[in-house]
Amino acid sequence: MTRGYIIPIGGAEEKHNEPHVLRRFVKLCGGRHARIAVLPTASELRETGQRYEQIFSEIGVKEARSLPFAERRDAERAEWIEWLEGADGVFMTGGNQLRLSARLGGTRVHEILKQRNASGVHIAGTSAGAAVLSEHMIAYGDEGGSVRADMVTLAPGLGLTNLCIVDQHFRQRDRIGRLLSALSFNPFVVGVGLDEDTAAFIGPDDLLEVHGAGAATIIDPADVSHTTMEHVKRHEPVSILGLRVHVLAQGASFHLRTREARASANVHGHHS
Amino acid sequence: MTRGYIIPIGGAEEKHNEPHVLRRFVKLCGGRHARIAVLPTASELRETGQRYEQIFSEIGVKEARSLPFAERRDAERAEWIEWLEGADGVFMTGGNQLRLSARLGGTRVHEILKQRNASGVHIAGTSAGAAVLSEHMIAYGDEGGSVRADMVTLAPGLGLTNLCIVDQHFRQRDRIGRLLSALSFNPFVVGVGLDEDTAAFIGPDDLLEVHGAGAATIIDPADVSHTTMEHVKRHEPVSILGLRVHVLAQGASFHLRTREARASANVHGHHS
Repeated sequence: MTRGYIIPIGGAEEKHNEPHVLRRFVKLCGGRHARIAVLPTASELRETGQRYEQIFSEIGVKEARSLPFAERRDAERAEWIEWLEGADGVFMTGGNQLRLSARLGGTRVHEILKQRNASGVHIAGTSAGAAVLSEHMIAYGDEGGSVRADMVTLAPGLGLTNLCIVDQHFRQRDRIGRLLSALSFNPFVVGVGLDEDTAAFIGPDDLLEVHGAGAATIIDPADVSHTTMEHVKRHEPVSILGLRVHVLAQGASFHLRTREARASANVHGHHS
Repeated sequence: MTRGYIIPIGGAEEKHNEPHVLRRFVKLCGGRHARIAVLPTASELRETGQRYEQIFSEIGVKEARSLPFAERRDAERAEWIEWLEGADGVFMTGGNQLRLSARLGGTRVHEILKQRNASGVHIAGTSAGAAVLSEHMIAYGDEGGSVRADMVTLAPGLGLTNLCIVDQHFRQRDRIGRLLSALSFNPFVVGVGLDEDTAAFIGPDDLLEVHGAGAATIIDPADVSHTTMEHVKRHEPVSILGLRVHVLAQGASFHLRTREARASANVHGHHS
């Protein structure tokens, strides 16, 4: 079985006038034949789900349906569960990533998302919906370039991949410090900082391709020789030595396993 | 292939006079035939590794050897790596769990620990060495019963299991609040609070058996109906509704998948 794509988007993706990122997601899911489940759980706005139903209809899908899981017991709503199980793609909106983890974590919805992605369904999320895709997620943190333990609060996400930690609105909100802080705790994981209107399409082979108007900043700690995270107090600056950084724009790629970066996508790069 | 046991110990385990927990670990590893690799990386004391070499010799093993990985580049020391790859059991000492994650995370040592455990090698850790075994670990936190986001700092551990988060010195240091805070972020994971001189032997089937002088407090959030973690500010109290709690002493068990607790161990319970 081939895993579906995992598609974190850095927030504020273009929705109407050249929706490059969303269109590419729709194409992967089957274009005009695609059934897209929208999970607006992260959002506090009632209209978020309906808004994305309309955006996906405009792009052109078979059906887009909002499943507004709001409480943990909603995971028992048979009709929504059935729709989710039949969808070709899942899209999680922005808002607060802790709403997603606290309300869906450990429920039947969480289980279905993992199972369906493993068997080929593509799962995208924007902003909070992007953060929650990975095993370790940034729940919140401070702006700025400092690296300190108290810059960032990590929490468990939905766990579709454990190869990267995503941060979103990356250059717009100056989040390099909080992403580096997250990596300093345990340099096993790749940091992916996504600008707005920019997505990382992580394929079944764990090749990450960048699409959209901005860049993905890849922070690879494979060769880190030292971090002082364990020495210092929570509010003191941390040293971390030996990071490798790539800034990747449209069409560039990074392999999350081999840790190789390329300026243009591999052979199977598409244009949408 | 059958996975080895994962054995978090709550710290301050009895070492000389009736070392029940350590003896049980040694027995699993092959008793007098066992080669035990001791990883003292969490500790800042030079003598920690040698001390455990001696403790294991007293209990009776073929050989116990301390591999004092201290820097990330130590993961390239061929002789230590070879010894680690040949060991029947691995024991991680106490100290600071961030030393383990920051120094071993993503290195060859980390990879070997995961591979060897998957193919049958038993891995135990006490205190900091217990915290680091799971995917999500408590890096540090505050004492007391309050549940608040800023009670606890989570970081990625070594990831041998993703079914539980361990806290240690549990009743001795009043850590119920920080463990509940950790679960409130995402109630998908079981909380295991281990008293001192008490271990959770997590078998290949993910049955957790308790051994030692104290208790394991199991906090199962499977039926949690609501948490307010996403609403409140970091220092404000959080509500979490519908937790199930078991306090398990010597011989009692809890199945991390089925979430069933039993007062005495299942058919294959041993006595050491």
